[in-house]
Amino acid sequence: MIDKLIERIKELNNPTVVGLDPREEIIPEFIRKESYRKYGRTLKGLANAYFKFNKMIIDEIYDLVPAVKPQISMYEELGPDGIDCFIKTIKYAKEKNLIVISDIKRGDIASTAKSYSRGHIGRVSVGGNEHKVFDADFVTINGYMGYDAISPYIENCKELDKGMFVLVKTSNPNSGDIQDLKTEEGRYVYEHMGELVSKWGEELIGKYGFSKIGAVVGATYKEQGKILREQNPNTFFLVPGYGAQGATAEDLKGCFNEDGLGALINSSRGIIAAYKKDEYKDRYSEEEFHKAAREAVIRMRQDLLRVL
Amino acid sequence: MIDKLIERIKELNNPTVVGLDPREEIIPEFIRKESYRKYGRTLKGLANAYFKFNKMIIDEIYDLVPAVKPQISMYEELGPDGIDCFIKTIKYAKEKNLIVISDIKRGDIASTAKSYSRGHIGRVSVGGNEHKVFDADFVTINGYMGYDAISPYIENCKELDKGMFVLVKTSNPNSGDIQDLKTEEGRYVYEHMGELVSKWGEELIGKYGFSKIGAVVGATYKEQGKILREQNPNTFFLVPGYGAQGATAEDLKGCFNEDGLGALINSSRGIIAAYKKDEYKDRYSEEEFHKAAREAVIRMRQDLLRVL
Repeated sequence: MIDKLIERIKELNNPTVVGLDPREEIIPEFIRKESYRKYGRTLKGLANAYFKFNKMIIDEIYDLVPAVKPQISMYEELGPDGIDCFIKTIKYAKEKNLIVISDIKRGDIASTAKSYSRGHIGRVSVGGNEHKVFDADFVTINGYMGYDAISPYIENCKELDKGMFVLVKTSNPNSGDIQDLKTEEGRYVYEHMGELVSKWGEELIGKYGFSKIGAVVGATYKEQGKILREQNPNTFFLVPGYGAQGATAEDLKGCFNEDGLGALINSSRGIIAAYKKDEYKDRYSEEEFHKAAREAVIRMRQDLLRVL
Repeated sequence: MIDKLIERIKELNNPTVVGLDPREEIIPEFIRKESYRKYGRTLKGLANAYFKFNKMIIDEIYDLVPAVKPQISMYEELGPDGIDCFIKTIKYAKEKNLIVISDIKRGDIASTAKSYSRGHIGRVSVGGNEHKVFDADFVTINGYMGYDAISPYIENCKELDKGMFVLVKTSNPNSGDIQDLKTEEGRYVYEHMGELVSKWGEELIGKYGFSKIGAVVGATYKEQGKILREQNPNTFFLVPGYGAQGATAEDLKGCFNEDGLGALINSSRGIIAAYKKDEYKDRYSEEEFHKAAREAVIRMRQDLLRVL
């Protein structure tokens, strides 16, 4: 799947992934109203609105970007209806030939990780019947618990050609609390994590030189991104932090190789809520939120290609 | 809620939490058969079997233990039906006056953490209507991303009297990959995490001297448990690793204070799948799996009290 991701990035000349992180406040009123009329101001009502919103976004961007990244928390907080919407979103995106990265950031002991992995990228057996439940292409994983918390996913990545991104240096303001601790050998915790990820991924390197086991590296930490890129030449980076979190195209240049490959840049609110921003508000109505998203994708691509 | 937890531990003289981690292979055949007859060998069929199983366990143990800890991965892998079963399990346990620790180990940037926190221990608003979705009493959280990944939960802990346990030193074999890195000041990463957890919890200390922000400390690492106990006197410990993961009562003694308080010991398979173990098999049939679980709880309590 890492090979397919790279091929799609090349075909579209666009290393962008669109984060599908819906929230009530960014869903246009006409979608909310219709859904609440049908299902009430219920969890199902909002989940249904999210799906409609996601579909309209996907329909406008699937020919421009290689991948989407739904963030499960926004769906999970709505309970079973939210999870149903999450699964339907993955399915719909895949039907449109988009690669799907489920942003789940799970991390647990091996026996528990097995359940997560089966559900999200593997298969679940019930009385011998096999079910694909979430069926994402990639997942994001937290590696604080070490190798055995990762190994079940590696199995599924191998057997079913899936992929994963392990948190290395995250984009948030306090990511340094633990990640920037300096160890006695003079390196930072995030460097150790980066090294572990490279080691875990060694046997899963595809034809373009990148492993199925990638890393999450925040665009908001420019220097660290550059260091990690040099230290981990076979690790593909999923890079959050561009746009709403403050990073610019210049900041994330160091996450790429000289040939312009090696990283996939995420933008969520900057794309899906573009219609609320001053630069778009005058030209797009709420009803045209998806058209604004399309323009935001095109402008993001131009911005990225400018520095690559 | 931390105060209530401590009161219940005292009342029952039992610092045990029962992990509700169902898996198809530990569900007795009579429960599976009935459920598959009704719903087929589907995700719903297995989720329904899990709920029946959990209910029968809860009915046998609610008068003996203060808390249960459902592990969400086993439910999540079944999709919306699994999440529905997870929520129903929490609700049923709370009706029986059990404190519920949702073992979710989430960890993400603030805006995302807000969604998780609202869903699991807070309230979700849809068009102004407030919904309690999961409504657990405690959650487990991964702190690798630092303070802002934790802060939304702290808000809910304060306002709604909930609690959380942050992963500090986990029970699994490779937990040392990151957690045991030694920093330049001569301490381990898990010690730094322990210190952060204490600091984050400073303002939420209840009447028994323990904060609403606790720590997960694996019983399988005896020495580390002792060190962490000394370094963090106001942090309550959730301690996995007893039983199936290999730790004995002696190993986890160091997680307690001299007065026998300060830790809650988890056992999952050792209790809920007791009927499959040699020591119970001769005396309990599959139909009596819940009676075997009751005996396992009583024996675990005796074993713990022996060393406290």
